[in-house]
Amino acid sequence: MARALRLAVAGVGNNISGLLQGAYWYRGLQARGETELPGVRQNAIGGVGVGDIDFVCAFDADPRKIGQDLTDAVLAEPNNYPRLDVELPQQGAIVQLGLVNGGEVTVEDVTKALVDSDAEVLLYSLPTGLQWEAEQYAQAALGAGVAFVNCTPEVVARNPEILAAYEKANVPMVGDDLASHMGSSMVHRSLLSLFAERGVTMSSSYQLNFGGNEDFRNLRENGASKQKSKLNALAQKGIALDAVEIIPSAGYISHLKDNKVAVINIEGLGWAGTPVSLDLKLKVQDSSNAAGVIIDLIRVAAAWRRLGEAGFPIAAASCLKSPAVPHDALTTFAIDEALSMLNERVAAAADRS
Amino acid sequence: MARALRLAVAGVGNNISGLLQGAYWYRGLQARGETELPGVRQNAIGGVGVGDIDFVCAFDADPRKIGQDLTDAVLAEPNNYPRLDVELPQQGAIVQLGLVNGGEVTVEDVTKALVDSDAEVLLYSLPTGLQWEAEQYAQAALGAGVAFVNCTPEVVARNPEILAAYEKANVPMVGDDLASHMGSSMVHRSLLSLFAERGVTMSSSYQLNFGGNEDFRNLRENGASKQKSKLNALAQKGIALDAVEIIPSAGYISHLKDNKVAVINIEGLGWAGTPVSLDLKLKVQDSSNAAGVIIDLIRVAAAWRRLGEAGFPIAAASCLKSPAVPHDALTTFAIDEALSMLNERVAAAADRS
Amino acid sequence: MARALRLAVAGVGNNISGLLQGAYWYRGLQARGETELPGVRQNAIGGVGVGDIDFVCAFDADPRKIGQDLTDAVLAEPNNYPRLDVELPQQGAIVQLGLVNGGEVTVEDVTKALVDSDAEVLLYSLPTGLQWEAEQYAQAALGAGVAFVNCTPEVVARNPEILAAYEKANVPMVGDDLASHMGSSMVHRSLLSLFAERGVTMSSSYQLNFGGNEDFRNLRENGASKQKSKLNALAQKGIALDAVEIIPSAGYISHLKDNKVAVINIEGLGWAGTPVSLDLKLKVQDSSNAAGVIIDLIRVAAAWRRLGEAGFPIAAASCLKSPAVPHDALTTFAIDEALSMLNERVAAAADRS
Amino acid sequence: MARALRLAVAGVGNNISGLLQGAYWYRGLQARGETELPGVRQNAIGGVGVGDIDFVCAFDADPRKIGQDLTDAVLAEPNNYPRLDVELPQQGAIVQLGLVNGGEVTVEDVTKALVDSDAEVLLYSLPTGLQWEAEQYAQAALGAGVAFVNCTPEVVARNPEILAAYEKANVPMVGDDLASHMGSSMVHRSLLSLFAERGVTMSSSYQLNFGGNEDFRNLRENGASKQKSKLNALAQKGIALDAVEIIPSAGYISHLKDNKVAVINIEGLGWAGTPVSLDLKLKVQDSSNAAGVIIDLIRVAAAWRRLGEAGFPIAAASCLKSPAVPHDALTTFAIDEALSMLNERVAAAADRS
Repeated sequence: MARALRLAVAGVGNNISGLLQGAYWYRGLQARGETELPGVRQNAIGGVGVGDIDFVCAFDADPRKIGQDLTDAVLAEPNNYPRLDVELPQQGAIVQLGLVNGGEVTVEDVTKALVDSDAEVLLYSLPTGLQWEAEQYAQAALGAGVAFVNCTPEVVARNPEILAAYEKANVPMVGDDLASHMGSSMVHRSLLSLFAERGVTMSSSYQLNFGGNEDFRNLRENGASKQKSKLNALAQKGIALDAVEIIPSAGYISHLKDNKVAVINIEGLGWAGTPVSLDLKLKVQDSSNAAGVIIDLIRVAAAWRRLGEAGFPIAAASCLKSPAVPHDALTTFAIDEALSMLNERVAAAADRS
Repeated sequence: MARALRLAVAGVGNNISGLLQGAYWYRGLQARGETELPGVRQNAIGGVGVGDIDFVCAFDADPRKIGQDLTDAVLAEPNNYPRLDVELPQQGAIVQLGLVNGGEVTVEDVTKALVDSDAEVLLYSLPTGLQWEAEQYAQAALGAGVAFVNCTPEVVARNPEILAAYEKANVPMVGDDLASHMGSSMVHRSLLSLFAERGVTMSSSYQLNFGGNEDFRNLRENGASKQKSKLNALAQKGIALDAVEIIPSAGYISHLKDNKVAVINIEGLGWAGTPVSLDLKLKVQDSSNAAGVIIDLIRVAAAWRRLGEAGFPIAAASCLKSPAVPHDALTTFAIDEALSMLNERVAAAADRS
Repeated sequence: MARALRLAVAGVGNNISGLLQGAYWYRGLQARGETELPGVRQNAIGGVGVGDIDFVCAFDADPRKIGQDLTDAVLAEPNNYPRLDVELPQQGAIVQLGLVNGGEVTVEDVTKALVDSDAEVLLYSLPTGLQWEAEQYAQAALGAGVAFVNCTPEVVARNPEILAAYEKANVPMVGDDLASHMGSSMVHRSLLSLFAERGVTMSSSYQLNFGGNEDFRNLRENGASKQKSKLNALAQKGIALDAVEIIPSAGYISHLKDNKVAVINIEGLGWAGTPVSLDLKLKVQDSSNAAGVIIDLIRVAAAWRRLGEAGFPIAAASCLKSPAVPHDALTTFAIDEALSMLNERVAAAADRS
Repeated sequence: MARALRLAVAGVGNNISGLLQGAYWYRGLQARGETELPGVRQNAIGGVGVGDIDFVCAFDADPRKIGQDLTDAVLAEPNNYPRLDVELPQQGAIVQLGLVNGGEVTVEDVTKALVDSDAEVLLYSLPTGLQWEAEQYAQAALGAGVAFVNCTPEVVARNPEILAAYEKANVPMVGDDLASHMGSSMVHRSLLSLFAERGVTMSSSYQLNFGGNEDFRNLRENGASKQKSKLNALAQKGIALDAVEIIPSAGYISHLKDNKVAVINIEGLGWAGTPVSLDLKLKVQDSSNAAGVIIDLIRVAAAWRRLGEAGFPIAAASCLKSPAVPHDALTTFAIDEALSMLNERVAAAADRS
């Protein structure tokens, strides 16, 4: 097994709570000799297991988190990811005030903190909509030679100038916008594909999402860009997107806490125009749905860096909604092969050393 | 456009009602200049459109149907496919008493009727479970040099001896068991795939089917082989089938008539074992669901025969649950390519003539 | 059978389209000798059948409707109630420009039009939120001695001064806010009651509503008062309303047109705290859901007036969310008895004449 | 608080597991000072709380249970009620071989065991369909002067001869067939009522039940009487039962264990025949659903006996599907009042002593 991944995080929300608690949860399973790990796509990537993460550095802007050990910070309000049944030691990483538009912390401060903590990857996971912060953190990681992972829809890896700068500096850049582990886009897309493939004409479809974390409160007002992005995620041959309506946040339902519910309907016309009707309810732990994909993104980023590679690794593309190399230039086969090659190269390097 | 397909049918149930009425429904659309045909996978196969079917010969064992013109027979009880809003002329084909175990009609009688009617394809679509009848009709078609299509789970195309006899006699054989247009197996399989692909561990799943046609009454008692076959249809890498339970007929609900409802649930474990839960209701016109696939099976069979080919055309495989060449020896890509080549060869032959 | 009800309408939206088309639809059934009328609570109220409505006067503010015969106006955009399969003659009533805050039409103009048309009832059904218009139309009806029916949540019948003025002038006043025929509040309330009655502790519940008419577009932004009113509609002994969350408009889904979908979930704790979980989808024609209740409100109002009664008839209360005499001062039994008595008095008066 | 209820049980299935574990679960809540008891209709009946049950005698025919302390027996296979998070001491009551048609145990043996254990109530809860056993146990309880509670559809309390014998001997008799705490009949009936009350014409409806305990395996084959009884439970004015179809066991789904799922659909016609459609999924812990009602039935039976009353107490009727005094001869009001009076009389008696 390779050495643990040294991770820095910008943003200490539910996703990080899920990632951190989950890492300990899987370590617990493995300590008890379990070999089947539920909810995991890849037991190891680049030799790094799902529990092999060291959280070495953390930034946030919320006074309830700054100055706290990361373990205490992920459990502080307004986070409401469930408290898993695992022991959580202190991490030794204290949450620092991060970059805020108009604030006093500078890109150089962040670069220095990344270098001092010997981080390999910076995971960017602030609330949606902070384009300035996303770019500044990317600048800081670049300065430190630390791989950057962008979980948000902000345009970073898709910005050719930023990507070129990373390639030139020999630093990996992974983004943009994570594709949830089992998200409503994923399920909706898969069913619409099936309709197209079978020749059942989709006549109308809707998808409504609701939940009880801060995202659903924000998206209820500011869902326009998300709606566009979710529609794009469904785009494919044979599907008339103008018959599909998506509501990113149908409502903030506080008692659902960090759970998300999606309601999907597809109406179709089969042989001789006779009706086909499909109704679906999907319920997931929202931040687990992110963490289950983040774990792969950060491991690909770290492996890419350890191999001395730069820029965007296409092995990460199946975990992204808007990868630097767009989906229509890729195939599932190509992505899977890229991941296999990455693993083989890491293994070969390990054998040599 | 090629000449119309000359079709003989064994069994005059809801599927044939749907096929016949649907053919006129699509002709009506085309007569009104519509170019987009809803509910159709392939507008033309081997140059034959979805409306280009001549019903030239028909067999059944039910006294309510025998002696009737096929148009009257498909509308007679116990059939309960809806009466579509199209004019249905008489077909000129009178339903004849067919093969019955212990009955007086012989294989030779059927062969003669097929030859006399100049049929190209015999569509076998009797109720599930009549292995003897399936084999005898196959024997009769072979004698007449007519392509055979087996819609049922009875073992015909999968029987190596029968298939060899067809190949030797230079006659096409298409089977077994049609894969519905948008069936519950199709949807269930697609969602289980998605779970496996995303690394969300499926912990349990069920699928219940119910409806109001004769099938659901029969299957409630005699569903064991169907249950096995439906489980097989879900088999794939990464799916623990012992956690999946399928009820082929959960109940006969008469007022649903020829509609079928499927209820599917999948429970899974995502990141850190947190729950993922999916509930789905699918409602379809059951016999349209068959007819939408039969239309492709008979057109492939006729094209194969017109090209002078024998045995099993793999271009038919995506419309079958248990093709003569099994699914794990095929890829979607290979099947699609086979269909393209079939169409090209027919077109080339047409150009030459 | 009594003489037809002479109806004036303020607002010519989907509700009036449903009411008018429906009246002809039922006349058609009756003309064909049908005695069972689907979707009707009371075949006759005060001797007036569901088809016995004469539309004699109409007001609106939309230029697409003003100057049109009422039949043309109910079919004009943005109305999207379905066009029922009935012949619709012209009504002879031309839609007039009505009262608009700051407009040129006066209360006296409306009073005069009501008197000239010999209307018995003025049905107020403008979009939600126009308190000024509601009060002015009530003033106009009072001046004409015409019974007033308020379908909207605007405070009219609940305003003691207005009610007193109606009583003094010997004119009936029916309101406020119609309780839909089969609404989500109705279904939700009924299920919450069942939980309370059976002693299953409701731990959380939500209700989301969405649809494709103008209401859902408006309510998505301006749903606060509606949310309050819908919560009130659920209030009852044994139900902890703070655990219930309601979204009046989860989204505007244009292809649903005038249909409304409600999604309801109730989670409960049964014996020993074991879980009880209920999920429900309700789909209705939104304006039919209103028209099915309006038909009763206007017939009660007309009967009340024909009997020479004034003020609020409690026989109308089961069709109202916020009746002038509040629900907690009434019982179902009392309301039913009031309706019986009303019918008996009308019948007795008819016998005498 | 009155003294604990001394209970004998015939049949040691999931219902008794739920009842026994639940009694300790509620004692735990009360010991921690909780005053709100979730999932309970009546905190006390006749002064007896939900935790105040002493299990003093038990009968079964399964060798896996005979000779075991009742605590061990309720946890033995094939029972699969969940193991609640409570400590369960031994009960001191050893499960005895009970009455079996053709077996060696006699009615006199059971009578003696009931007398020796000083039981107040015998709860009869064997699998559905054992009419002989039900009658023999009733005979034994009568001989011992112990109140009898029949949870099953077997005809006992409805048998006028048996009831008369109990009245003559001054012993209470409570039955037949428990009405689940939150059962599918209850929910279905409540919604059909609402349709009738609102004047929305129910055009068709179905209800399917499935689950993973032994009941669902048995009922799949032997559901005819259950289907009849469940239809009867829906009977009410304004509902056309011939349009309702019920499947008591749509399937045995082993991984659901002791959970039950019901799927209910109601299609209706609203104003002008426009469609109303309702789909519902209900999931409950099946045996908790029984235990939540059994707790009331046995407390009513004990209170009735302590008051020196005989025969059928109508205070029990709301917990029964087929009470000795039929539902159409009772009102909810009468039942509630009977329960209040029972409680008052017990309280008055306690004050005197």
